[in-house]
Amino acid sequence: MSAPAPTTPQQTGDAAALTADPLAFGVGARITAAVMSDRYVEIITDALAAVDGAGLVVDPGDVSTYVGGSEADLLRYVTQLSAAIAGTGVHASIVVHLSRGCPGEVVCVLPGGAGSRVVELPQGETTGHFAAAEWALYPLADGVRDGVEPDHMRDIYAAIDHARGNGTFVASEHFVTRLEGDLGAVLETVVCGWARVGRSVQHVTSHLTISVNSPSHAAR
Amino acid sequence: MSAPAPTTPQQTGDAAALTADPLAFGVGARITAAVMSDRYVEIITDALAAVDGAGLVVDPGDVSTYVGGSEADLLRYVTQLSAAIAGTGVHASIVVHLSRGCPGEVVCVLPGGAGSRVVELPQGETTGHFAAAEWALYPLADGVRDGVEPDHMRDIYAAIDHARGNGTFVASEHFVTRLEGDLGAVLETVVCGWARVGRSVQHVTSHLTISVNSPSHAAR
Repeated sequence: MSAPAPTTPQQTGDAAALTADPLAFGVGARITAAVMSDRYVEIITDALAAVDGAGLVVDPGDVSTYVGGSEADLLRYVTQLSAAIAGTGVHASIVVHLSRGCPGEVVCVLPGGAGSRVVELPQGETTGHFAAAEWALYPLADGVRDGVEPDHMRDIYAAIDHARGNGTFVASEHFVTRLEGDLGAVLETVVCGWARVGRSVQHVTSHLTISVNSPSHAAR
Repeated sequence: MSAPAPTTPQQTGDAAALTADPLAFGVGARITAAVMSDRYVEIITDALAAVDGAGLVVDPGDVSTYVGGSEADLLRYVTQLSAAIAGTGVHASIVVHLSRGCPGEVVCVLPGGAGSRVVELPQGETTGHFAAAEWALYPLADGVRDGVEPDHMRDIYAAIDHARGNGTFVASEHFVTRLEGDLGAVLETVVCGWARVGRSVQHVTSHLTISVNSPSHAAR
């Protein structure tokens, strides 16, 4: 369960150290790769073996794999994993759940006033694989700080502009934004949008469902 | 894209009518069923044919299927669909993204002051199929109304208590709550938790990833 942090800031401990360390700040992803083939175990095992997990904590599970670490390392990891799966030509659904700013579950463990974490927006890789995806982005803990309410809509619009700028934006649909394009560009859009909103909001999550090698995409 | 509604209430139009009509209030789900078999098209087609879509708007897509309608109808639909897939014995991942209170995407279309929608918590069905799942619940638009900030944590705790009460709660993990049990009980927990938080918060979303027939669950 993931709920917004308390809106009343309470600066305790070393906030700068909390926001600088990705694991302390709770920067991570849960990834579910579902491969629609009888050979799913072999395909996922091969894909995991092809991925560079440097700098990351990786904890596989039966529902998803948790990966913790910096935004740039996460983007590299999820891009390599997804590209390895897409490269098999088999239809697959890849779900990526990103979170930063709340290492806890029901109630945020970080003090509400830990503040936001500002990072360089990582650059994606071109994979050569087409992806269609649905994206939701949630700025959660944006309580008033120092009497000023953070303008998370400014960052949401900047995230959308980024998607329009790199050509991945397709349309707004019920509850999500539809993205299409190179798998690497789609993932860059989502990781950068999430990190960008995180410049002003402490707790930001994002959910992405990607489809690769769909029979519906045969014309691409 | 889905972002919180403006926090400044602005009551326009007939708020009671907006909250009473599930489609006007944006009550719905996006469902992605990924079946890990060469026969995935046949299995999904058969499952969709077995489901009762009465009262719902159903719009299939290549990434997910959008389903709009009341909470009770949504619970019945997603339970029947998931149970039909689980009944094949094939390993599958089923992702359910629930939303209510924000029919729009980037910016909520409903006025911030439309208010919350209160419904009876629907009863789940027992399916006889084991499921493991990861759950995130997001109360989004809980700005101050009438000078009172809604106590969404009270409802989050009530949602967790519901999960403990029906035995589906397992543990808090990074970014999610782990649920296990009968597929129908897991879905009831999530739909009721979402509707319960929606009694005090207008815009509430929830994301659930379910695993059925996993080789990891062979001992169940």
